[in-house]
Amino acid sequence: MSELSVNHLLGIKYLKAEDIQLIFETADHFKEVINRPIKKVPSLRDITIANLFFENSTRTKLSFELAEKRLSADVINFSSGQSSVKKGETLIDTVNNILSMKVDMVVMRHPNPGAGIFLSKHVDASIVNAGDGAHEHPTQALLDSYSIREKLGDVAGKKVVIVGDILHSRVALSNIFALQLQGAEVMVCGPKTLLPKYINELGVKVETNLRKALNWCDVANMLRVQNERMDISYFPSTREYTQQFGVNMDVLNSLDKEITIMHPGPINRGVEITSDVADSNQAIILDQVENGVAIRMAVIYLLASKIKQ
Amino acid sequence: MSELSVNHLLGIKYLKAEDIQLIFETADHFKEVINRPIKKVPSLRDITIANLFFENSTRTKLSFELAEKRLSADVINFSSGQSSVKKGETLIDTVNNILSMKVDMVVMRHPNPGAGIFLSKHVDASIVNAGDGAHEHPTQALLDSYSIREKLGDVAGKKVVIVGDILHSRVALSNIFALQLQGAEVMVCGPKTLLPKYINELGVKVETNLRKALNWCDVANMLRVQNERMDISYFPSTREYTQQFGVNMDVLNSLDKEITIMHPGPINRGVEITSDVADSNQAIILDQVENGVAIRMAVIYLLASKIKQ
Amino acid sequence: MSELSVNHLLGIKYLKAEDIQLIFETADHFKEVINRPIKKVPSLRDITIANLFFENSTRTKLSFELAEKRLSADVINFSSGQSSVKKGETLIDTVNNILSMKVDMVVMRHPNPGAGIFLSKHVDASIVNAGDGAHEHPTQALLDSYSIREKLGDVAGKKVVIVGDILHSRVALSNIFALQLQGAEVMVCGPKTLLPKYINELGVKVETNLRKALNWCDVANMLRVQNERMDISYFPSTREYTQQFGVNMDVLNSLDKEITIMHPGPINRGVEITSDVADSNQAIILDQVENGVAIRMAVIYLLASKIKQ
Repeated sequence: MSELSVNHLLGIKYLKAEDIQLIFETADHFKEVINRPIKKVPSLRDITIANLFFENSTRTKLSFELAEKRLSADVINFSSGQSSVKKGETLIDTVNNILSMKVDMVVMRHPNPGAGIFLSKHVDASIVNAGDGAHEHPTQALLDSYSIREKLGDVAGKKVVIVGDILHSRVALSNIFALQLQGAEVMVCGPKTLLPKYINELGVKVETNLRKALNWCDVANMLRVQNERMDISYFPSTREYTQQFGVNMDVLNSLDKEITIMHPGPINRGVEITSDVADSNQAIILDQVENGVAIRMAVIYLLASKIKQ
Repeated sequence: MSELSVNHLLGIKYLKAEDIQLIFETADHFKEVINRPIKKVPSLRDITIANLFFENSTRTKLSFELAEKRLSADVINFSSGQSSVKKGETLIDTVNNILSMKVDMVVMRHPNPGAGIFLSKHVDASIVNAGDGAHEHPTQALLDSYSIREKLGDVAGKKVVIVGDILHSRVALSNIFALQLQGAEVMVCGPKTLLPKYINELGVKVETNLRKALNWCDVANMLRVQNERMDISYFPSTREYTQQFGVNMDVLNSLDKEITIMHPGPINRGVEITSDVADSNQAIILDQVENGVAIRMAVIYLLASKIKQ
Repeated sequence: MSELSVNHLLGIKYLKAEDIQLIFETADHFKEVINRPIKKVPSLRDITIANLFFENSTRTKLSFELAEKRLSADVINFSSGQSSVKKGETLIDTVNNILSMKVDMVVMRHPNPGAGIFLSKHVDASIVNAGDGAHEHPTQALLDSYSIREKLGDVAGKKVVIVGDILHSRVALSNIFALQLQGAEVMVCGPKTLLPKYINELGVKVETNLRKALNWCDVANMLRVQNERMDISYFPSTREYTQQFGVNMDVLNSLDKEITIMHPGPINRGVEITSDVADSNQAIILDQVENGVAIRMAVIYLLASKIKQ
């Protein structure tokens, strides 16, 4: 396989296992590039990319922007604070206007689930979903799997537990799809109030006891507690959450084997995981961030190849 | 004519017909450039441009930024949210500070009419007015005329009606000057409360009946209803405005000929024009956006040529 | 001396006189560069710099950004409005995340004194302090001394008075350190309520009478009145401040000799200095701004040389 089966990256749901394989092999190359003294390649000098962020973001926006610049693409940034969206313009009109300025690719974060899918049907540009509400965040799931592959040699056959607020998490959903597609076993673990009602349809194990989940897994992906997304009354208090679902070194040391700890960031130190866990050799949190740039370079490069045809 | 008669683009009022002709011919070249695979030229590698936006803007700022980058200029962006203006600094001090950093050209949007003119007398850089209050928005008028020329072959002799809130519109004023300079006939059409008192001095026809205006014209430029600019008590309600001055396909189909529909964006779909009108073949709204980049490249390129002399 | 004695620019306090000499000689070269038609050098094509501004800034941010771009570095900007800091992430985590994306240098403004020093001990990148609370603002002090050297030939032996709110001013503290290191005599002058308690430990003369201070000095550095930093009840009113510590042409003309007037900007015209003073030949305020870009290019270039070793 030498090209992606899709023209957009809207969600992991739309990818084939071979697409992920191709993205990983391409990312291997770009990871070498960003560790060279000259961290750039001239590949996409003829591509203009618009980053449209209708929601705040730090690391995802920076990571995409660096990926784009290291591919030598021209980059324009647009965030909703400055936008016509406030003036009542429709999303399609906003994006069509930007595309009329001869933009080839749109990287979009949007609060509404499905915004990218909707857009891809109505505009003539390649769309990369950088997070659409509580739906998908495909590049995060790709960099997570890529980091597991890097640490453990392969994703197939590995046992991965995703711990935390599964209900509101696009990271969780995209990870479930990506891990299953690659043949990993997936468990989710969290308070019942933060598991979606359709959880049984996703083909994952469900566990509400953290210790049992950790004893089962090879890798634990500790989601961030996102207070800003939750209906306060549903949620256990932060203190209760930490007592039941937080990971500290005592818990890790009491397990039979050394598991790998992941976190999509930003970390609430002392809430989901303690500082010593975050900074331990078992954690690959900063590798995830580094791999994020390589993965995003790969995705953009492969989608751009399809535009040029 | 091989160079502009002006050193700044402060308003259409200060241009000669030959200036507009030169800008259009230069834009023809750049429109080819931005439709090539490599959308850039190295022309302005030695020019630094500051975009100073003291008012929010989406499309105008992106359009200028893309134009500058495609000319290979170095670009710095400054918006009033982050600015020293809040700290009580004068406009001249702010701009002189930026110029001391060796900036060659300033693209400025400012809420005060005449801000660019004032500045051009006090600082040593080429100024491009990207909208000064309700006064002028010259690049918008240039791209509008350029789009008419592209669609109808020529601007001279054409009948153009500008529909909407003429009183608060820099787009209207700059368009009137540009169209008259090129020998078009101009009519304005809107509620009496939204026509300026000095309208009779502008040498335009005035019509408060939309159907009569549309029957007369070759081109209708439908201004955006800018609720944020108006004194609420003066204005007909949005519903009344749409009933009297909104354009739908029934109205268009009832005319004797096929007229061209323009809109400076962002569109309030269902207010000034219905969705089917916006998306019809008679509308050239997205061509206007595309031409905006070419026109701004031309203006910046021609002004920069004068700096270098 | 061909390289800096430090790996970070955290404060003037950590520099040797030879470091300042090296920075000035390097800035001499870059000042020539930014006055050429092509204002860029390709020196840092392999360096990625992150500008992290956790406090608002106009001129400092633009000046650093221009310095970086003119060295051909790749630049990413991050300001706290968009940041994960709001989500409770620690400073070290935020910066480590950015560094994992393969960033070589961090230019940081932060409201907390010592933020850069703390960071330099915990992360693996070169840190440039662009202002840390009321502590230091080293590049401002360097450009101030460089401007004195340019105007008066040398800093050693010159008498410099810093006028204003010494208590809250990082500009004052960094200037005191820099001027003393180069052998200048330093006086501070301001209302007693705006002098720090430890002023006697700094080895500077203290004067509360402006006329006496001006009669003594060769150079007066007039600090901005920073209302936003002060406890209102402590402060003389703005009117009282201007009467006692504001400089107008009458005061300047009544002195025995022509002194040089500096101001770090943004100016409150009519408060610290009148408009005619700001615009007079004795003021070198815009030279300071121009020199700021050359000084920042020099600092970044010299620190980057140490990274590459």
